[in-house]
Amino acid sequence: MPIPLLSLSRRLRSTPYTPRIEALGVKAYTVYNHMLLATVFRSLEEDYQHLCDHVQLWDVSCERQVELSGPDAARLLQMMTPRDLGRAVVGQCVYAPVVDADGGMINDPVVLKLAEDRYWVSIADSDVLLFAAGLALGGGLDVRVAEPEVYPLAVQGPKADDLMARVFGEAVREIRFFRFARLAFQGHPLVVARSGWSKQGGFEIYLDRLDLALPLWDALWQAGQDLDVGPGCPNLIERVESALLSYGSDMTRENNPFECGLDRYCQLDGPEFLGREALRRVRDAGPARRIRGLRIDGGALPPCRSAWPLSASGGNAGRVTSAVWSPRFDSNLAFAMVERAYWEAGTRLDITLPDGAARHGIVCNLPFAES
Amino acid sequence: MPIPLLSLSRRLRSTPYTPRIEALGVKAYTVYNHMLLATVFRSLEEDYQHLCDHVQLWDVSCERQVELSGPDAARLLQMMTPRDLGRAVVGQCVYAPVVDADGGMINDPVVLKLAEDRYWVSIADSDVLLFAAGLALGGGLDVRVAEPEVYPLAVQGPKADDLMARVFGEAVREIRFFRFARLAFQGHPLVVARSGWSKQGGFEIYLDRLDLALPLWDALWQAGQDLDVGPGCPNLIERVESALLSYGSDMTRENNPFECGLDRYCQLDGPEFLGREALRRVRDAGPARRIRGLRIDGGALPPCRSAWPLSASGGNAGRVTSAVWSPRFDSNLAFAMVERAYWEAGTRLDITLPDGAARHGIVCNLPFAES
Repeated sequence: MPIPLLSLSRRLRSTPYTPRIEALGVKAYTVYNHMLLATVFRSLEEDYQHLCDHVQLWDVSCERQVELSGPDAARLLQMMTPRDLGRAVVGQCVYAPVVDADGGMINDPVVLKLAEDRYWVSIADSDVLLFAAGLALGGGLDVRVAEPEVYPLAVQGPKADDLMARVFGEAVREIRFFRFARLAFQGHPLVVARSGWSKQGGFEIYLDRLDLALPLWDALWQAGQDLDVGPGCPNLIERVESALLSYGSDMTRENNPFECGLDRYCQLDGPEFLGREALRRVRDAGPARRIRGLRIDGGALPPCRSAWPLSASGGNAGRVTSAVWSPRFDSNLAFAMVERAYWEAGTRLDITLPDGAARHGIVCNLPFAES
Repeated sequence: MPIPLLSLSRRLRSTPYTPRIEALGVKAYTVYNHMLLATVFRSLEEDYQHLCDHVQLWDVSCERQVELSGPDAARLLQMMTPRDLGRAVVGQCVYAPVVDADGGMINDPVVLKLAEDRYWVSIADSDVLLFAAGLALGGGLDVRVAEPEVYPLAVQGPKADDLMARVFGEAVREIRFFRFARLAFQGHPLVVARSGWSKQGGFEIYLDRLDLALPLWDALWQAGQDLDVGPGCPNLIERVESALLSYGSDMTRENNPFECGLDRYCQLDGPEFLGREALRRVRDAGPARRIRGLRIDGGALPPCRSAWPLSASGGNAGRVTSAVWSPRFDSNLAFAMVERAYWEAGTRLDITLPDGAARHGIVCNLPFAES
């Protein structure tokens, strides 16, 4: 089957940067939080190479913010996550899995602590807004839950510091990883974080003034001409090579944080949260499966659009959740949720592709290591 | 800009019927509840004509069910909707807007009452599951909130009764509009409702046995060969002609049910629900805007992928939310959220298209009436 077209409608929300990325030739989208997210400009491989070599502007408006503000904001946030947020400081970005009462993953956002009583929960693809609103209403909490008009623009790649410094000043270089500062653009302070969904370095600018969206894009674009700035987007090759998991693909509500390798974000003896009892049981028994790396033999694979079954000696060994050909590793790399009996590094597993073809894979640790 | 491609990944969930609709040549998808929903097979116009003349199978698995079960199921459901569900009977489908505490629309599902303590909330495109789970957890309700493995298949078009009778027996003809029965397929009882997102008549089969998905599709397909059965999907032309609103396009959380013309589903003096005070204020003051029909002059319009501004004498008159060329009305038809001062039928409004071009439209009542 050829790659399908995407039918556009208002329900698949455009962003303030859409005019620019379409003028620059975006070829494909995905849909993320009911919003368009670019996936390809030139080709997956060319976009990847450019990201690793230069600097790109990414319209990641679909990283919607769920703003929690008011006296019970911190309390509501802590209810939702196993991560102990008690020591988070203003100006910090905190990766904080969100779980339900069964410990199932609802999202894996990055939380920006804007003030002691104000947070932006920068979400992956599920309506955390509705979960938080439900919890607040059901529990009678004194907190405002809203989706503010914030449209993140990411600047990613090895030249990101240089480009950002030209537009925001040298202060941008001082921002530490997973910290943010407020830096002026045309006199308006914007939240600028050293973060982003690649391992090539860079920033996310949390634009909160709609009328500054195109001026911001254009300023970065102009300033980056001699740096070979290009349009970009989260890149499947780069994210798999860098072991960045995607909620909805590599983990779902059926998985708990231990299965997702997020043990270090689970403080089960810290403050109370919804899924604490359930996660203590998982911790005590050990998870039944885990996200693992997989090197898969043979040539390039088809897109992994559904979980591919894994087996060993005929037994169920788990499922492949993302897969791509890696130029850097000169091999297919994949993420797989692997059953406990098979998760040891070096285990050889059989993969069945949707067309019935068989491949072999070797379990390995994440992040992938060059051999 | 050419129509973009859709990048497939596990996050955009396939359905049990995907192999069949791809073999039958689906050309385009949208994404709905994190799941693929076909939008075009031959062309929008050919699909439309076929739907109006014959019978189609629609993979509407993306109508996900939020199952509420247990002692507090009815109470939780009533918290979420202004519709008085006190008199709903088992076997009934009930259209029930879901609102937040401000009366903003969160979804507009059809609720299937399976038992006094068990409901399927058949949702439009937002994670009602998370809202319901949040309310239940926050309020300590004794209710189970889950997304069951249910994959609705719709049979739509004027020959739907005949086709369904061949597979499910003559009893299917006795099902009244917005009622459901349990009818056997290969010995397994399936919920079959007379409902669906077209006005061409038909049914929705709530398949809850994954292994029966392809057998069910194939049985309907075989039985319908001499009825010219075809693959289909919710069709933009048909839905606009039939005045079927789409959550996310024609209404969002910024709108309340009165703005969406859903007055008759709001029983504000009935049982308590979250947004009651807010909606009473709207009722008393009258809504500030309303969904209205619009006939737009000139030839076929581009896809309405963002709200198009409406004005009159330079003042803001609202926004167009969906628009399409209607063969039946030989005119462009649109839905628009129109400000109160301009919503009178016959009012002439100016429309600005994204490329800056101007059109004129005339406000009219919904459903559209042939003149």
